[in-house]
Amino acid sequence: MTSEVTGGRYRMSVAYDGSGYSGWQVQPGRITVQGELERVLAELTSEAPRVHCSGRTDTGVHARDQVTHFDLVRGHEPRRLIHGCNALLRDDIRVMRLRRCPAHFDARRSATGKEYRYFLWNGPILPPHLRHQRTHVRRPLDAAAMSEAAALLVGRHDFAAFAANPHQERGGTVRSLWDLDVRRKGHEIVIVAGGEGFLYKMVRSLAGFLIRVGAGELAVPDTVSILASRQRTARVPTAPPQGLFLWKVRYAKRSP
Amino acid sequence: MTSEVTGGRYRMSVAYDGSGYSGWQVQPGRITVQGELERVLAELTSEAPRVHCSGRTDTGVHARDQVTHFDLVRGHEPRRLIHGCNALLRDDIRVMRLRRCPAHFDARRSATGKEYRYFLWNGPILPPHLRHQRTHVRRPLDAAAMSEAAALLVGRHDFAAFAANPHQERGGTVRSLWDLDVRRKGHEIVIVAGGEGFLYKMVRSLAGFLIRVGAGELAVPDTVSILASRQRTARVPTAPPQGLFLWKVRYAKRSP
Repeated sequence: MTSEVTGGRYRMSVAYDGSGYSGWQVQPGRITVQGELERVLAELTSEAPRVHCSGRTDTGVHARDQVTHFDLVRGHEPRRLIHGCNALLRDDIRVMRLRRCPAHFDARRSATGKEYRYFLWNGPILPPHLRHQRTHVRRPLDAAAMSEAAALLVGRHDFAAFAANPHQERGGTVRSLWDLDVRRKGHEIVIVAGGEGFLYKMVRSLAGFLIRVGAGELAVPDTVSILASRQRTARVPTAPPQGLFLWKVRYAKRSP
Repeated sequence: MTSEVTGGRYRMSVAYDGSGYSGWQVQPGRITVQGELERVLAELTSEAPRVHCSGRTDTGVHARDQVTHFDLVRGHEPRRLIHGCNALLRDDIRVMRLRRCPAHFDARRSATGKEYRYFLWNGPILPPHLRHQRTHVRRPLDAAAMSEAAALLVGRHDFAAFAANPHQERGGTVRSLWDLDVRRKGHEIVIVAGGEGFLYKMVRSLAGFLIRVGAGELAVPDTVSILASRQRTARVPTAPPQGLFLWKVRYAKRSP
């Protein structure tokens, strides 16, 4: 691969089907998204860049637009890097965009917000082409009730009741949730969650909670008491990973 | 499984992701859709029904709504058969509907028409979640030219130039093509083909031809001369299987 004079920082957008990966983060003996990206970048550049993402995804979780950054000592032409990565990667990970960026850009720290989408199939039979990308809920769900409950969660709150490990969250458990919309179209229900930041497994916990509301196991007013409890209990289950997509990461306009 | 007094014929709609199968038809030593359906029905009924389809699909080709029929000596409750099949099948085949039908219904012979859809991804990078369900064409295609060429093929014609083995078609090579539409939405191009019947690999041949028109390798007026030639030549390539879906099978209204 042709080298230019100077290296520097690169910003790379990645899409992946998480079905075949033990999540984002490198782990010994596991196939991970970060591990695959670092492996092919090492092969292409003869360097060993560490690839940093906007936020880790768990086993089985997908990304439509995961933003990452990495540094190289020698310069490489972005178009060649894209083609090289996509030629070496399995077809369930794709580098969608790649460009040089200023050294102060940080995929995680520079992010000003994120959007996740959680996709449910709420019909008797899950169509085979959607099997890795939908959580199948057979019981008919009341999307209007889910939508009402979701609206009560929007805003700046202590979301400890919707975190997997609230006591391990370094920055505390208060977060701003900008949007939490529930949209039904036929058998498909999409939960759109936008916010400045999310706690560990927060979107899957919100989805698990909303599914219980839709099924009538929890009532809309329970939302308020559960949120106020600031305690994670079995009332809020964690929905399965395969319905979840990291959809979009936002950066300030000035950001590269 | 509970037996009722009398058996009879059953009509079954099946959806499948063809990626993992050597096509529809049972073949020794291969995993096929028909083979899997017959295996699970045998397990559920202790009979060995042959499952007949509306039209065989090749290796890697998908079905959204493949219609089939089979006969059982003893009666079985359709809902139990659906659940039983879907519990035993891998998740890339799903029985979507199943009901009793009159003995004169034949999934292939009773069909009055079929719709296939061929999906192309015409952008630089194929998103990973679509990898098994789209044919990736990187060169920008002119969908308007494809649409013009397609319109010239609609009607009752000798489609020998678009058949894989024109001399092996038992009923000759004349067919009525009702619709051949090319629709673009962003990077996605869908070719919708509806007709009374299709020759072997005819839809993939039409798609292969239209891709060449879209790429400017063939001109719109070539359509007329290729059709009139009634000769299959290398000018018409067969497009890959993974973009093709058997979308819908039509039966007369009176049909069960």
